[in-house]
Amino acid sequence: MSNTQNTICAIASPAGSGAIAVIRLSGPNSFAIVQSIFKSKTQQIIQNQKSHSILFGEIVYNKSVIDEVLISIFKNPHSYTGEDAIEISCHGSIYVQQKILEILIKKGAQLAQAGEFTQRAFLNGKMDLAQAEGVADLIASESEAMHKISIQQLKGGFSSALNLLRKQMLDFSALIELELDFSEEDVEFANRTDLQKLINKLNSEIKKLINSFSYGNAIKNGIPIAIVGRPNAGKSTLLNTLLNEERAIVSEIAGTTRDTIEELLSIKGFQFRFIDTAGLRTTTDQIEKIGVERTLEKINKSSIYLYLFDINQLSPFELLKDLKQLNQEIPRIIIANKTDLIGNDKILEFQKLDIDILFISAKNQDSLEELKTYLLNFVNSKTNNSDIIISNIRHFEALTKANEAIERVNNGIKNNLPTDLLAMDMRDAVHFIGEITGEISNNELLGHIFKNFCIGK
Amino acid sequence: MSNTQNTICAIASPAGSGAIAVIRLSGPNSFAIVQSIFKSKTQQIIQNQKSHSILFGEIVYNKSVIDEVLISIFKNPHSYTGEDAIEISCHGSIYVQQKILEILIKKGAQLAQAGEFTQRAFLNGKMDLAQAEGVADLIASESEAMHKISIQQLKGGFSSALNLLRKQMLDFSALIELELDFSEEDVEFANRTDLQKLINKLNSEIKKLINSFSYGNAIKNGIPIAIVGRPNAGKSTLLNTLLNEERAIVSEIAGTTRDTIEELLSIKGFQFRFIDTAGLRTTTDQIEKIGVERTLEKINKSSIYLYLFDINQLSPFELLKDLKQLNQEIPRIIIANKTDLIGNDKILEFQKLDIDILFISAKNQDSLEELKTYLLNFVNSKTNNSDIIISNIRHFEALTKANEAIERVNNGIKNNLPTDLLAMDMRDAVHFIGEITGEISNNELLGHIFKNFCIGK
Repeated sequence: MSNTQNTICAIASPAGSGAIAVIRLSGPNSFAIVQSIFKSKTQQIIQNQKSHSILFGEIVYNKSVIDEVLISIFKNPHSYTGEDAIEISCHGSIYVQQKILEILIKKGAQLAQAGEFTQRAFLNGKMDLAQAEGVADLIASESEAMHKISIQQLKGGFSSALNLLRKQMLDFSALIELELDFSEEDVEFANRTDLQKLINKLNSEIKKLINSFSYGNAIKNGIPIAIVGRPNAGKSTLLNTLLNEERAIVSEIAGTTRDTIEELLSIKGFQFRFIDTAGLRTTTDQIEKIGVERTLEKINKSSIYLYLFDINQLSPFELLKDLKQLNQEIPRIIIANKTDLIGNDKILEFQKLDIDILFISAKNQDSLEELKTYLLNFVNSKTNNSDIIISNIRHFEALTKANEAIERVNNGIKNNLPTDLLAMDMRDAVHFIGEITGEISNNELLGHIFKNFCIGK
Repeated sequence: MSNTQNTICAIASPAGSGAIAVIRLSGPNSFAIVQSIFKSKTQQIIQNQKSHSILFGEIVYNKSVIDEVLISIFKNPHSYTGEDAIEISCHGSIYVQQKILEILIKKGAQLAQAGEFTQRAFLNGKMDLAQAEGVADLIASESEAMHKISIQQLKGGFSSALNLLRKQMLDFSALIELELDFSEEDVEFANRTDLQKLINKLNSEIKKLINSFSYGNAIKNGIPIAIVGRPNAGKSTLLNTLLNEERAIVSEIAGTTRDTIEELLSIKGFQFRFIDTAGLRTTTDQIEKIGVERTLEKINKSSIYLYLFDINQLSPFELLKDLKQLNQEIPRIIIANKTDLIGNDKILEFQKLDIDILFISAKNQDSLEELKTYLLNFVNSKTNNSDIIISNIRHFEALTKANEAIERVNNGIKNNLPTDLLAMDMRDAVHFIGEITGEISNNELLGHIFKNFCIGK
C-alpha cells in the first residue's frame, strides 16, 4: 500500500519558535526529496544509510543555505508510518520552519492532512484503530489520569482486551455454526448451558467496559462536580480556596448558561471540573425557581456533587429537608462550612444525625485536605472496578451496540430461538468489536477519526 | 572541560502541545541518566551504540510507562555541544513533556539555563562567539533578510572576515615589534609607507563593517520608515492600503509616544517598520508645535522617509517650502497622492519641478508597486556596499573601539610616534576584534550574551 502513496510533509513540533523544530516526511519519495536539498560535507547518500541513523548537513535551495540541520532516516517498514520517512531537525525559527516546508512542497511533497501520518501507520498495519486514537488522546492529555488511559490504549492494552472478547465470540459462533451445518438433522452439538455461560461472561465483560466510560469520559473532560447549597453557604469561597491553594487554575470556561462558572482543578493528577451554582432556596419567585431548576440539572450532570451549608444558619431539620430534595442517586459529599464561627456543641448537634458530614472552614482552609481525600477516594473507587477505561465515545457506542447484539443472543438462547438467528446476532457483535480496532473500517469512519488529530501526527 | 561539567536538560521544541516534542540532554551523564529510564525490546545499551544512531523504546518510571519515544544518541565530541548528548523525541503532550523533564531532573540532570547548550558548544570549541550569537539571531529571524544575515554569521562568514582583519593586524604588529627589539640600535625595519598602506586598508575594512550596522540593525528590528505630510494628505490610507494588500500585518506596536503607531510590513523578505506621524503644518500653536517636532524626530530615526502630499491641496511652491523644512540628509521618497481626483495638467505642473516625485492614488492602489520597488531598491543599494552585515550592537561597539585604536595608530604613524606606542594601540585593536569571536572573553560577557537565548538552545 505504501508504494502507491504520495509523500507527505508537515511541521511536527509545536507551533511557534523554539530552539529546535522538527519537520517530518513520509512516503516513497522522502529520501529523494530530501536528498535534492541536502548537502553534507562528505556528500552522503541518504538511500545508502542504515535505518535509524542521523546525518548532519545543510538544507540548500537556489544556492542559498537555509539552515544547518540533522536528518533522521527511517527505512520502510521500520518507521512510524511503515513507509520511508525522514525527520528534519532544524533551528526553531518560524521563518526557517516555513521556508523548509515550502521547499519540500516545491520539491514534490504534499502538505499532510491532520492525522495523516498516524492514518498511514494504521493502514500499513503498524497499529490498530484504537491504538491510533490513543495517540491523539495521549497528545491531548493534560492530567496524569488521562495520560494513564491513553498510554494504555496506545500500547494496545485496550486492543488486547477487545481481541480476547472477539475470540470468545468467535468460539461461540464456531459452536453454533457447527450445529447450523447439521441443522437438517436436528442435532444439538452445542450444550445450551455452556452457551449461556459464555454469553453471560461476554455480557459482563462488555458491560464492565461500557460502565467505565462515564468515568473515562469524566477523566477526559474533567470530572464534573457541582457545588450546591443555599446562598451565602460559602460556595464561592470554597471554590476559590481550593483553586488558590493548588495554584492550578487551568482555565475558566464560560458555562452553558451565563450564570455558571466552571473551573478546572487538578488534584493529584486528576482533573476536576468544579461547577459553581446559583444559590438553592425554596421559593415561589418564578425567576429564582428557574435558578433552582438549573442547579438540579447540574447535579444530574455531575459525577459527584458537594452540598455545602453554613452551620450557623441551618438547623439539622432544615439540612435533612434540603438533602431530601436533592438527587440521592448521584454520590455526594455533605459539607458543614464556617466551623470557625461556632462551638463544639453545635457540631455535636449535627453529628447526632445519621449522615456523614465533613466539617470545614473554607475561610481558614480547615479540613480541605480531607475534602480532597474524599474526592480522590471517590475517583479511585471508580477506577478499581475496571482495568481498562474507555474514554472514547466511538468505542462506547460500538460496545453498546455489541452488547445489544449479545443481549439478543442471550434472549434467543432463553427463548430457544433457531441457531441461525443466534449466529446472525453474534456476527453483529463481532462486527461492532471489529469496528473499534479497525478490522472493519471505511473511508468515512477513518476521515472522521483522523480529522481531529493535529497536523504532523 | 566537558568532563567536569554537570549534565543539563531542557525542552528544545517550541512551547505547547504538538505531534512531537524534543527534550535534550548534554553532559557526561546523559547516557547513564537516559539508560536508567529507557527500556527497549532488545534491552539495548546506549553507551554501546554508534554516535548519530536512533533507538526506539519506552520511558519507564516507577514501573509506569510514560511514553513511547525515539532517542537520538550523539557521542562526545560529535554533538552540538561537543559533549555526550541525547535528544528524546516524545509525543508532544504538555503533560508528557513536563513529566519526562521532571524524571530527568530526579535522575540527576539539571535544568539548562537559557543558551547553556550553545554556551557549552562555544566553551568546547565547536563554534566561536559570533557564530553562537548567529544561532540566537537565526532562531529569532522573522524575515528573509535577517535570516540571510544570521545564517552567514552562524556558518562563520563574519568570523572569517574578522580573522582576516586580525591576521593583518598581527602582521602589522610583527613588523613594528621586530623594530622594537632593536630599538636601542635605532634601526627602522618597517617601511613607514607600507605600514601606512596596511593601516589604511584595515581602517577601510573595519569602517565598512561598522557602516553596515545601521542597515543590519534596521533589518533586525525592521527598517524604520516615517510617513510624514500635512493633515489629510492620506498617510493613514497609504499605510492601510500597503498593509491590507500584503496581508502581512505582523503586529501593532504601541509607539514611544501615544500618538504614534508602528506597523510591520514585509516586502519581498524585508521587514519595514512604518511609522505614521502626526500631521505636519506650520503653526504657532504650542501643542501643534510639539507634534511637528516629534515628527521631525521620527524622521531623524528613519532609514528612509516618505513625504506624502495631496496633489489637490498643495501648490508646487508650498511643496518646495515643506521639503526645505525636512531633513535632507536622510533619503526620502516624495509622493503625490490622490491623483485619481485630478487631470494630467496638474501632474505636469509638478513634473516641471526639478525633483523626483512618485504619483500615486493610495485609495485606488495606483502605483503602489512602484513605491515598493523604490523601497526595495533603497534596501538593495545599502546591501551591495558590504558582503558582511553587522546586526549585533556588541559587534558594532567592539568594531568601533577597534577602529578608534586603528585611528590612533594611523595618527601615530603620521606624527612619527615611537614604535612601542603604535604597538600598544595595535594590541588594543587585536583585543577588541578578539572580543567579538570570543578569543577574549569572561564570564560576565558570556552570561550577558547567553541570557538572551531561549531555553533548550
